[in-house]
Amino acid sequence: MRIHDWPTGPYPARVRIALAEKNLQSQVEFVTVDLRKGEHKKPEFLVKNYSGTLPVLELDDGTFIAECTAITEYLDALDGTPVLTGRTPREKGVIHMMSKRAELELLDAISVYFHHATPGLGPDVEIYQNAEWGLRQRDKAIRGMHYFDGVLRRQRFVAGDDFSMADITVIGGLIFAQIVKLPVPVECDALGAWHERMQDRPSVQNWAAMSESAEVPG
Amino acid sequence: MRIHDWPTGPYPARVRIALAEKNLQSQVEFVTVDLRKGEHKKPEFLVKNYSGTLPVLELDDGTFIAECTAITEYLDALDGTPVLTGRTPREKGVIHMMSKRAELELLDAISVYFHHATPGLGPDVEIYQNAEWGLRQRDKAIRGMHYFDGVLRRQRFVAGDDFSMADITVIGGLIFAQIVKLPVPVECDALGAWHERMQDRPSVQNWAAMSESAEVPG
Repeated sequence: MRIHDWPTGPYPARVRIALAEKNLQSQVEFVTVDLRKGEHKKPEFLVKNYSGTLPVLELDDGTFIAECTAITEYLDALDGTPVLTGRTPREKGVIHMMSKRAELELLDAISVYFHHATPGLGPDVEIYQNAEWGLRQRDKAIRGMHYFDGVLRRQRFVAGDDFSMADITVIGGLIFAQIVKLPVPVECDALGAWHERMQDRPSVQNWAAMSESAEVPG
Repeated sequence: MRIHDWPTGPYPARVRIALAEKNLQSQVEFVTVDLRKGEHKKPEFLVKNYSGTLPVLELDDGTFIAECTAITEYLDALDGTPVLTGRTPREKGVIHMMSKRAELELLDAISVYFHHATPGLGPDVEIYQNAEWGLRQRDKAIRGMHYFDGVLRRQRFVAGDDFSMADITVIGGLIFAQIVKLPVPVECDALGAWHERMQDRPSVQNWAAMSESAEVPG
């Protein structure tokens, strides 16, 4: 398998953490797509992923699978023992709901803020910006942090008693929050405590180490 | 099970079609949430779904599952024979990717256009609008129609050889397109032909009949 991504990106982090949770890192070759040069918006890349986003998983048969949730579903099903996406119908439903909610209310909102209300990837890549929309999304993300804080006050993990894809999506959101300097409000102490616990997971430590040592081209 | 929705809504349609594909309609009680009165944005509803969107599935144990993909995962797994969300890792990955792409590039884009660049649900519900963003999303949706036309020129269904959740998401997109009077461009004849074939499916006919006869309150 090959993964086309950018080593320090928040969405790529979701798949890299999922890979480590499934112990599949050694089966993957990483191909760097230079975000800062806008390579993800160029025709050569758009045939791999119409939406022009990272990461993309390339299977040995040439199939391209984009979208973090889709890639995680694929990786989690490979060994027949899904530990990230749920075993029972109820687990599957709740994990998918909470992961989508973490996209809508946190990660995607911060991404829109970054691309629309900050310099983002620079003027050559950000050819259209809507700053008002971007600032609204920043405010939504801060409300989202309070929402997830409330969730984690009631339960140990984002989707209930066990670690899942939904935790990884919130971790991705907080990675992006750090990049755009949007700190978790101090009163969100349950979210903060959960986030500290997450830093102890080998998959998250592995990601942090990879991302620090990444030879980012340019 | 109970489903909180609005009988003619494009997102509710996705779950109603999935229900019919799984032959589960008789096991569900529908509860109407009046979109036009903004009931989905009121505190009583937000405890069921923080994001304030329809539909929401309520399980007999009191669990609320929001987000169409999550509800479809739940319903499809109930009988142990997933026919909508994929059996193999590759099927799961491709179906989730194509369904998410149908949200991003078609259904969600049209939803943003409706809520931001048209009167939407009226001034009492649409308390913030960003028309420029809405119009951008309309253009994105038209490009999305061309993209899915290209996909359906190469293969019989949105995610490959078989009907899946991804087809349902595109059907939801075209239901919303009709509401906002955004016709499928005539040159998108593969998308048009696929859409005609979809109208022959009992699940889609069942939805159309339910939606026409819906006693919409107000």
